[in-house]
This record gives sequence, C-alpha cells and structure tokens, in this order.
Amino acid sequence: MLFTIDKESLLNRIRTVEKITVQRGIQPVLSNILFETEGNNLKLSATDLDISITTKTTASVQEEGKITLPAKKIFEIVSKLPDKPIEFALNTDNNIVTIKCGNSKFDVIGISAEEFPNVIQNQNEISDDEAIVIDTNPLIKSIKYTVYAAATYQNRNVISGVYCQINEDNLEMAATDGNRLTRISEKIQNEKHKDAKIVIPSKTVNEFLRVSSIISEDKVYLIVSGSKIIIKTNSYTIISKLLEGQYPQYQQLIPKTTANTVKVNKNELSNAIDRVACMINERTNVIKFILQNGKMYLKSETPDSGTSEDVIETDYTGDEFKISFNYKFISDFIKIIDCENAIIGLNGNQSAAIFRPDNDDDYICLVMPLKN
Amino acid sequence: MLFTIDKESLLNRIRTVEKITVQRGIQPVLSNILFETEGNNLKLSATDLDISITTKTTASVQEEGKITLPAKKIFEIVSKLPDKPIEFALNTDNNIVTIKCGNSKFDVIGISAEEFPNVIQNQNEISDDEAIVIDTNPLIKSIKYTVYAAATYQNRNVISGVYCQINEDNLEMAATDGNRLTRISEKIQNEKHKDAKIVIPSKTVNEFLRVSSIISEDKVYLIVSGSKIIIKTNSYTIISKLLEGQYPQYQQLIPKTTANTVKVNKNELSNAIDRVACMINERTNVIKFILQNGKMYLKSETPDSGTSEDVIETDYTGDEFKISFNYKFISDFIKIIDCENAIIGLNGNQSAAIFRPDNDDDYICLVMPLKN
Repeated sequence: MLFTIDKESLLNRIRTVEKITVQRGIQPVLSNILFETEGNNLKLSATDLDISITTKTTASVQEEGKITLPAKKIFEIVSKLPDKPIEFALNTDNNIVTIKCGNSKFDVIGISAEEFPNVIQNQNEISDDEAIVIDTNPLIKSIKYTVYAAATYQNRNVISGVYCQINEDNLEMAATDGNRLTRISEKIQNEKHKDAKIVIPSKTVNEFLRVSSIISEDKVYLIVSGSKIIIKTNSYTIISKLLEGQYPQYQQLIPKTTANTVKVNKNELSNAIDRVACMINERTNVIKFILQNGKMYLKSETPDSGTSEDVIETDYTGDEFKISFNYKFISDFIKIIDCENAIIGLNGNQSAAIFRPDNDDDYICLVMPLKN
Repeated sequence: MLFTIDKESLLNRIRTVEKITVQRGIQPVLSNILFETEGNNLKLSATDLDISITTKTTASVQEEGKITLPAKKIFEIVSKLPDKPIEFALNTDNNIVTIKCGNSKFDVIGISAEEFPNVIQNQNEISDDEAIVIDTNPLIKSIKYTVYAAATYQNRNVISGVYCQINEDNLEMAATDGNRLTRISEKIQNEKHKDAKIVIPSKTVNEFLRVSSIISEDKVYLIVSGSKIIIKTNSYTIISKLLEGQYPQYQQLIPKTTANTVKVNKNELSNAIDRVACMINERTNVIKFILQNGKMYLKSETPDSGTSEDVIETDYTGDEFKISFNYKFISDFIKIIDCENAIIGLNGNQSAAIFRPDNDDDYICLVMPLKN
C-alpha cells in the first residue's frame, strides 16, 4: 500500500470514523481504523461490532493495499502534521506504515487487515434498489427532536431506540423512556415510495447526527435488511443492527384534547428554570409550577441549601393550578425547539402535559408530572 | 445584614475567592465564603487554612452584618441572575440569607460567621510600613517564568516553593524540582528599599497569578511577618504561610560557560517536539536530540506503537552530538517564553543544558539530560 493524500481531507475522514473505535477493549483491532485503497480512493472503516462506519475520499494511490492503524494515534499524528501532502507506505513484512510529511517521519505499527471484522464488507451484498431515498435535513431534524427522550442504551431494550415509520410522503419518529415521549411528523419526498417501520438504536442515530455534522450530504439512502439498517450517503455508510420487540403503542398515550392551554415565552421559561434549578433537590429534580392570574411561579427547594422562586408571565386566567415536573425533561425540550413561545397543554396535575413549540403543530413532547 | 450590589462586581469578587474554598472537607464552613459589610464596602473572604484571600468592593449597605454562604452555590446563583441590582438580607435568627433580583428570590442557608477561622483578621495586626512595595508586572512575569519548575506541592518540601530574593533594585526568583531549574532576575522599583529572602509555596504564587488575572492592579505590597507572607493590593489580600528550610544553593549549579551554543527557531522547535511526542514512551518522556551539520534531529520511540522523527535547522556546525531530555521540561520552557529563537547552551551530554530566550539574558531554564 502506497498513497499520498491531503492533510485536511484525511483528518476529516479520520474524525468521521474514529469515535466509534473501541479503546481498551478485548480485541485490540477494534481500536484501529481499517485503511484500504480502492481505485483512486482511500476507504476508512471502524466498528464497535454494533455499529460500523465506512467513509471514502480521493487519494493518489500508487500501490493498492490495506492495513489497520491505531485510531487515536493516527488522529493525533495527522492533526499535528503541517498542511502538506502526506505519504503512507506499508511494509507488508512487518505491518509497519511509514508516514512522511514535510520534515516529519513516523513508523506506526499496524495490525493486519485480516484481523478486522468483516461487518463492513457485507454492504456490497445489498443493492441500492432496496433503498428508501430521502432528504437529509428532515431526517436530521426528526432525530434531534426525538432522540433525547429515548431510554439509555445500557439495557438495549426496544425503548432505548428511536421508532421510525416511513410512509409514501411522511416520516414519523418517536422516542420514550416511560416518563416522557417525543413525537415528530415530517413531510418527505420518498422517491421510491417505500415503507418502513423500524426501531433504530439511539446510539446509531446519534452517530448519524455526529457524522452528518462533519460531512454534509443532501440525500440519504436507508436500506433495511433483516435485523440491520444501512444508512448511506455519497461519502459514508453506517451499518447498525436494529432493535427488536414491540415498540409501545404511543399514539394511545397522546391526549386528543387538553383542558387548559398555556403560552409562555420560551427564553423566559428557560432562564427561570435555569435559575430555580440552582436549588434543585438532586435526588428528585422536581420544580413546582403554579399557575395563577396570568403568572407562572416556579419553585424549588433542597433541604440543606434552601429554596428558590421565580415568576414569568403567561396567558393563564383560570383557578390556581399546581403541577410538578422533573425539570430536566422540560429543559431538554426547550433546548431543542426553535420558536418564540412554548405551548403547554394541561389535563390535571396527575395527567401528562403536552409541550410544543408555537410554530410547529407536528411536534410534541409529552411529560408525566411528578407527585406534588 | 442588608445590602444591594451590582451583579458584575459581585460575581467578579466571588470568582476571586471561591477557588480556594475547600469542597467536601471535614469543616463545612471552609466551603463557604465569608460575607462582611464594612462601611460602604462588602468584604468577601475564603480560606483553605494554608492560604486566605480577602477582597473588597463597594456596596449599598443598609444594615451591617456578616455571614458565611456556600461558595459554589452563591457563584451559580449570582452568575444566573439578570444584570440588575441584587439585594442580600440576612435573617440572624436562622442564618438564612434572602437574595432578591428582578423576579427571582432565593433563601440560602448560611453558616454563622463565628465558625469561620479568624486567619483573615490577623492582617490588621501588621502595619503597611513593613511592606515591600513593587510593581505588579515584574512580579507576575517572574512567577510565570519560574513556578512551573517547582516540585509538586504534595510533599510541602522547601523545593515545592518559589525562591524569592528582593534587593534594593532587583527581584530574583528561582524554582527547581531537582531535574530542572528556572531563574529570573528583574529590575524593580523597590520604593522603601526593603530586602527579603523567602520561599513562597507554588500554590500561593499561582493563586496570586489567578487573582491578578481577574483584578489587575499596578502595585503590590509584600509583608513578611514571621513564617507568613501577606500579598496585598488595593482590592485584595492574600495571606499564606512561607516554606521553611534551606533552599538549594542553585547559583552553584548554573555553569558559567558552555562548550557549545545552538540557536533554533522557537516555533519550529515547539512544533517538532509536539509531533515527535506522538510516539513518546510515556514511562520515560524521552526525546533524543541529535545535532549535525546545521540540523537538529528529534527522535522518539515507544515499543508497541512505533517511532517518530523530525528535523529543524540550527546554526550548529560541530561534530555529531547526541543528548536526551524529558520533552515536557523543554515544552514548559517553550510555552512560557516570548521570542523568536531559543538559545541552548551545551556542555556534554551528561551535563545540564541551559535554555534561554534570545531576547532576555536575565532568564534561564537549566535542564538535566537523561541517559541516552
């Protein structure tokens, strides 16, 4: 293997894949990135056995070959090199790659490509004809607006994923951890009119968000094959297992009507929560919300430190109404929405409240209240 | 106690003192800041029993008083408040301070000021007439240029401090950990012509640097009183114990002449060390330097990962010369100096090398080589 490549384009690609390598695992090769030449391209791949990522970029290839190199070390070396062409030369006798750039030279000990798991190679077996082709932006938005409500990945339960339903012209996503639920519905151009109902691990969709922020692409190809999903763009491919099991019938949980609807300025609510949380009880995370005469009072207390209180304007005119929430659930919702006002639909202080932005009817965040 | 104060000026003062409070120690009061009114001033104090810091700022005081409040909590609350006047009102029956600002209100549980150690109060016993008055800038520079070479504070040995000798018109500082030595000599205007020879804990001088970056002052008053030093400016006072014991006779260690003097561009040296260090053996931190025919080669290797090599220009014309250093000692020196070239004085590969900037004869960093 012998090729020359630009610093920036290589660094960019290493950044795409290195995060999912497994440092200090049982299999040393999983802490490495697979470098492969393919015509005039350099292909980089990494896997943690749950997710695999491959990315391609052009390089000046003089001699074909492949090798795995330690991800963190290679990232560190390339990031410190001057902005000049970098030459990679593999000595197949000892798996050592000599990296030359300007006055710098490194001999890096690799691990044979034969030891790298072949999860990546499977992608060639699946035809693009099977793909659902959609625009990247609605997919990114839908993930961002839902994934934060998913259960933690630790248990690998079906609710640690994001539910994703694709119809002819619609993408619906939902996530829940049992105490809150997010749901979004976005119009899409589903070019081949293919359908899907899948649960993608939150780790996988977060990886897709991360990679998308490094390499932006207009179109994304989703290919469901058995218990796997392949998320493909022009320059990278993510392969992940899907989560199996019955996803909760969340539609039933969303109230059709709400007894009261309250409007508050999003930034005022955000600042008030932030301040009141200074005195949060870290065991319960509870903030009490009291609605009365056009005001929303927020209160918090923690036994050893003291109490906090803030007040903001609302359009509420009914009787005094008290409800308590885990403030983190509301903060997560506020952080993600992009609007002037938040609308809160209420059905009594033991029923789920519906939070939504005032400029988007197709997104809701349902939050269960805590006992007062 | 009842006073009103500006957000920014209070936040600034809290920042000055809160870093030295002791979180999760045996004495809860040490995690607090002492708030005291004094005429039209608010005085804030904190101590970890080794170092104490007091700072003053104007406030609109309606009722005198004092109380201690949790440092981290108060910092968090004040930083999140809107930019409006903040009112502090102490209820002396229960030590609760009510903080009001805009629509926000906090009841914060304090600890009685009686429980706060009285280290701070001692300062009034010492007269300013005893003070050495010097400009702040040469003191800050001298500390920055030396303190990094001091031994770690853990053992509280005399070499964990910075040696400081003040004469009529000169400030000399030195620090060493046994493997390297820094020494600086700066002209000063010592207004009262007072002398001192002291060893200040590196923790204390670092604290002085930190506070100076928050509140800048032209003049600093140094008062040595027994085994204590008081470092005083118009708006803050640091009190610290001094280190006792015989400081090493470092003057004897500095060679009067060097067999060879080598000039290298500082940035080139810095970048080369940075790159070569990618392959550093983390047990030894050793980089080999080889001088030959106007070049300086830098080499490093680590058994499992590989090797690295870089080369920069020098004015060296003698025979091949090899010497090895702990690269961190050289990086520390490079980070602190502000010049185009570094000058390296060499006396054989088992003798101390002298590093200095090309624009300042009064500063040196002596580094012992490692075995090749």
